[in-house]
Amino acid sequence: MPEDLRQTERTTISRHAERGSFCRKTAYAILDEGMVAHVGFDIGNGITVIPMTYARLSDEIVLHGAIASRWLSSFEGGKPVSVCVTLLDGLVLAQSAFSHSMNYRSVVCFGDATVVTGKDKKQAAFKAFVDHLVPGRWEDSRQPDTKETNATVVLSVPIDEASIKIRSGPPKDSIKDLNLGYWSGVVPLQLTPGAPIRDPLMETEKAVPKYVVDYKRP
Amino acid sequence: MPEDLRQTERTTISRHAERGSFCRKTAYAILDEGMVAHVGFDIGNGITVIPMTYARLSDEIVLHGAIASRWLSSFEGGKPVSVCVTLLDGLVLAQSAFSHSMNYRSVVCFGDATVVTGKDKKQAAFKAFVDHLVPGRWEDSRQPDTKETNATVVLSVPIDEASIKIRSGPPKDSIKDLNLGYWSGVVPLQLTPGAPIRDPLMETEKAVPKYVVDYKRP
Repeated sequence: MPEDLRQTERTTISRHAERGSFCRKTAYAILDEGMVAHVGFDIGNGITVIPMTYARLSDEIVLHGAIASRWLSSFEGGKPVSVCVTLLDGLVLAQSAFSHSMNYRSVVCFGDATVVTGKDKKQAAFKAFVDHLVPGRWEDSRQPDTKETNATVVLSVPIDEASIKIRSGPPKDSIKDLNLGYWSGVVPLQLTPGAPIRDPLMETEKAVPKYVVDYKRP
Repeated sequence: MPEDLRQTERTTISRHAERGSFCRKTAYAILDEGMVAHVGFDIGNGITVIPMTYARLSDEIVLHGAIASRWLSSFEGGKPVSVCVTLLDGLVLAQSAFSHSMNYRSVVCFGDATVVTGKDKKQAAFKAFVDHLVPGRWEDSRQPDTKETNATVVLSVPIDEASIKIRSGPPKDSIKDLNLGYWSGVVPLQLTPGAPIRDPLMETEKAVPKYVVDYKRP
């Protein structure tokens, strides 16, 4: 795989080009930390953007859904999608309203989503979906049987034509605004796990696993 | 405004219909809590999904960008978009890998994004962008001058053809899986503010405002 993502007209950052990057390694880090992808497609009645769980499988983003899903069934043969994963890192409060911003890291990926047919790859994707969200969980849960496997469609999108945009650090006010006397700075934001809530239907009493107690994103 | 959002073919929830809703009030609550919208559009080179800040202005979602932005300039006259706001509330760990899920609340909105031209409405949108992220901040910052106002394009999308999807609560394993002996339950997730970081370039020393110290989402 090339070190850089593929720059095309649509992956070229037109505004704040200094925030853009094509570094594959950075894209992987963002994709591995994120938990929800926003996927855009058009199956004949206009553009639709929906939130989906996902995982990175080497140089592909894998998505999944129920075979009974209306929209998924139209991906047989492949269909163009745009997949975006965004991590919100903070609110940027500048002296001027105009210079307010957010700190974030995002990846936007373009490509054809195709249906994964190989049994082994499908299984690898299932493992990735679970372990991406909760590392170690796959081995500590009942794995899919044939019926469940057949009921699930896995889509794959190559991580190739894609770009990264990152904003970090303090506000960037014009020099003339720096003495206006407002407070300026950053409010960091982080997705934080709360105390685990036991499933009331769980029949066997079981200690909360270490990977849940110590849960944090990579 | 009708109490319910408009149900059409594309806003009809095909899977897990029990998670769907068209309640306008609920949609507003999700939109008011969220901070990033994922916006899908096609300006001639395929579907693109990008993250944007936004605000709700009564029954519209307003978006904004620089007038110099390549893609924004093509919205003159209106262009269809899909706008999705997702709040991630938790990870759902079931006995079976197949029943793993996420707790979330999302709104998907379809409509034509049109350029806001009225000066007053544009100003109202600017206020909404800032106060949506940090309530009270607009009055405590320098407001946009004519040059900044003219350099910014505001888009409006009606909150009309839209749907909500919500998953909450414990895992939903099959009865036969409840005694498998794994731990099952929910790991709640919340976007949490950290300690504010002062802008090193701020020239006047100023206490951190109360709306920053006490920061939390609605």
